[in-house]
Amino acid sequence: MARNAHPEVTERRILEAARDLFVEKGYEKTTVQNIVDRLGDLSKGAIYHHFKSKEAILDRLNSADWDYSQGLRDQIMAREDLTGLDKLRALFTLAVSNTEHNKLNQAALPMLNDPVCLANNMHFWTADLPEHWLPIIEQGVADGSIPTEYPREAAELIALLTNYWLLPMFYPASSASLRHRVQCIAAMMSAIGVPVFDDKLIEQTTDFYASFDSE
Amino acid sequence: MARNAHPEVTERRILEAARDLFVEKGYEKTTVQNIVDRLGDLSKGAIYHHFKSKEAILDRLNSADWDYSQGLRDQIMAREDLTGLDKLRALFTLAVSNTEHNKLNQAALPMLNDPVCLANNMHFWTADLPEHWLPIIEQGVADGSIPTEYPREAAELIALLTNYWLLPMFYPASSASLRHRVQCIAAMMSAIGVPVFDDKLIEQTTDFYASFDSE
Repeated sequence: MARNAHPEVTERRILEAARDLFVEKGYEKTTVQNIVDRLGDLSKGAIYHHFKSKEAILDRLNSADWDYSQGLRDQIMAREDLTGLDKLRALFTLAVSNTEHNKLNQAALPMLNDPVCLANNMHFWTADLPEHWLPIIEQGVADGSIPTEYPREAAELIALLTNYWLLPMFYPASSASLRHRVQCIAAMMSAIGVPVFDDKLIEQTTDFYASFDSE
Repeated sequence: MARNAHPEVTERRILEAARDLFVEKGYEKTTVQNIVDRLGDLSKGAIYHHFKSKEAILDRLNSADWDYSQGLRDQIMAREDLTGLDKLRALFTLAVSNTEHNKLNQAALPMLNDPVCLANNMHFWTADLPEHWLPIIEQGVADGSIPTEYPREAAELIALLTNYWLLPMFYPASSASLRHRVQCIAAMMSAIGVPVFDDKLIEQTTDFYASFDSE
């Protein structure tokens, strides 16, 4: 059949439509029928031919998102004009910017009310995400810009605290109390020799997480 | 029937037998039949008359355990010879001692591999446990022994980091790397004006969490 001649084109269209709907309506409120309606020329069966469930669509989007984040990190890591600390700040600044792919992550947050989704995310934040930050911190240790005795601990804490402790869905907070929380992280990270949060990044991080609450 | 004349006596016997078995065999490997066998004079039906499931027995043990922890806190809070910092250290020292009730908590740790149990515990560590630590920290702020601008943040971090980040089941660690992690918490808490971890408490905390791994 013609529509299966280029399955990767169909899959990309499904993923883009689903991503747009997850951003607009949230993950939980989006149905496979909504994706059918948005695309206009595919049946529900055709979508299930490519993805066994709505969750499978999100999994594919997440792994693409992770590839994208790793790609950004690799680009920044390759720059020879930046210290480790500069790179850590640059990458963290991207992590708290209102990019399209961060908006998608944000739209998927209500999923964390589901225990299985929460357990999966905790595992990701605990086991995988620290490995994303660690090479940058280690470069900073080597070039002297991040004078820490705690590179692994810092990587684990950045992953855990900025993804779990800063989320207002877990720890409800006004914008002012979120800023106080970010300042607390900044003071603690500086104390262990990882001064990633300057005043500008404190404000940007606060604004980013505060925007989650009003959604 | 005679055995129901004093249901609280029967319930206490069931709870004590279950607690002993959870400590000896672990929660997952204990069956209701094991509890029947241990007690000798009660049928499985009689146990289900008092508790609808093994999980209900654990829930009751946990709430009794929490009442016990709150009782200890209230006793320590009532002492007029101690500063807030002394009280925080005294209570944290009890929290990392090999008491009977800590052994029970430890025996129940494999439950956290279950997503629903993990989600329940994360909620407890996030929403409830900080309220346990906060009044002590606030007293330390008032009497000058805990010179922090971050009392709530410190209560949340103690609850999250010492219950999640220090557990080797989530973040595998040798005894040496656990000590390094506790030293990292000590440095960060001191930096925000909450110098709860002195050298003695660093060693005791390390030994306590390191013992979890070999079980």
